[in-house]
Amino acid sequence: MSGHLAVVGLGPGDARYLTEEATATLGAADALYGYGPYLDRVPTRAGQSRHASDNREERTRAAAALRHAARGARVAVVSGGDPGVFAMATAVCEEIETGPESWHALDVTIVPGITAMLAVAARIGAPLGHDFCALSLSDNLKPWDLIERRLDAAAIAGFVIALYNPVSRARPWQFGNALERLRRHLPPTTPVVFGRSVGRPDECLSVTTLDAADTEAADMATLIIVGSRETRVIARNGRSPLVYTPRAAPEVSA
Amino acid sequence: MSGHLAVVGLGPGDARYLTEEATATLGAADALYGYGPYLDRVPTRAGQSRHASDNREERTRAAAALRHAARGARVAVVSGGDPGVFAMATAVCEEIETGPESWHALDVTIVPGITAMLAVAARIGAPLGHDFCALSLSDNLKPWDLIERRLDAAAIAGFVIALYNPVSRARPWQFGNALERLRRHLPPTTPVVFGRSVGRPDECLSVTTLDAADTEAADMATLIIVGSRETRVIARNGRSPLVYTPRAAPEVSA
Repeated sequence: MSGHLAVVGLGPGDARYLTEEATATLGAADALYGYGPYLDRVPTRAGQSRHASDNREERTRAAAALRHAARGARVAVVSGGDPGVFAMATAVCEEIETGPESWHALDVTIVPGITAMLAVAARIGAPLGHDFCALSLSDNLKPWDLIERRLDAAAIAGFVIALYNPVSRARPWQFGNALERLRRHLPPTTPVVFGRSVGRPDECLSVTTLDAADTEAADMATLIIVGSRETRVIARNGRSPLVYTPRAAPEVSA
Repeated sequence: MSGHLAVVGLGPGDARYLTEEATATLGAADALYGYGPYLDRVPTRAGQSRHASDNREERTRAAAALRHAARGARVAVVSGGDPGVFAMATAVCEEIETGPESWHALDVTIVPGITAMLAVAARIGAPLGHDFCALSLSDNLKPWDLIERRLDAAAIAGFVIALYNPVSRARPWQFGNALERLRRHLPPTTPVVFGRSVGRPDECLSVTTLDAADTEAADMATLIIVGSRETRVIARNGRSPLVYTPRAAPEVSA
């Protein structure tokens, strides 16, 4: 079995976030698979085929890429951010587990990338500087009451919370509901960061508070970081504020 | 104020994990500050000064770098992994908040990197494919009972758990205590991944279960990922197993 499948993280959008390993793996691939807008970020190379698919077809895309690799090709599946965080690496593992024996024998490499919460955090300071969690607000594949329990648990225990997939056309109320849930546990002044398209021309970053956080400020490409009780904002004259969570937690926290 | 301070994430160790932005920022710096072994990873350049310090001197190092930048220099502080995850970006923010007004006016850039949990996850499959948290086991700056409450909350709510800073010479019992705590909530067969020195010649990765997890397998450079009830292991003939957490969570989970 000479085939090889790589799942490559492109980071949040701009080429400056690509790792050397990602660039090398993309360059060496015979075929690229991925959501169209992600494929468009990868420089074209003669002799390399491209297979674009829709955003919601992760399992189908993963299966097609595995079939292609099992025929002996070097195949790369591209993923926004990090492929292991709410992205393509999981879909590939799911297909391998349920697929033909030949897929188990394939050489599989996951190439990590800068996931959205790290990119947004870096642009605003260090809000993830203390214990934190990453939670997808999509209830397509998990029940909403489980998401609510996780929001409760994370806020009460004092984790900073990074929210992925806050809204979509099919999920209009979930983010507002999540904010309401968090307001039960956290002070109204808790810092909240909205980050979108980091590193791209349409980059948009804003800092607000939990009581003022507006669901209209988020779309499906937005990553939200909700601070803990310890998260702080440093105002700076003529510069954007710095948001960070101190390394020390007091005895009374949580 | 012409000074500039960058806090640069080097990723887990090998140069292939460096982003283009990190490479460019390090190359443009007049002075580099950091823990000695991290500085040693950065190629030397004529005219660039280097200021190595001990691992535990984050605040002192951050203050020295800020003073240097405030004199008008381009200064880079290097950090292992991602600077915003249990690393130098937080120490820099702490120093800016409590430091002189001139530090508030400085141009500060955080350059994200591949943090250890993303690197370890990528080497083993996609264990962070569903909701997860990152928790430091160091009780140097937070009380141990708070760490226990967070372990309880995360395990009960069904988060996959990435453990940073599991042990040190001064903290010999904490990791064993944490495993005991997690065994109260999670099945004995829950997959546990130990990862160390990813991408370096001494890389060491292993997969075990929560009941068999051995505290001796971890040192201060080890990152541990404890699965949720949903995390799965795919055995593969002649290849290392794949560990992943499915995107779907059942109704009964948590």
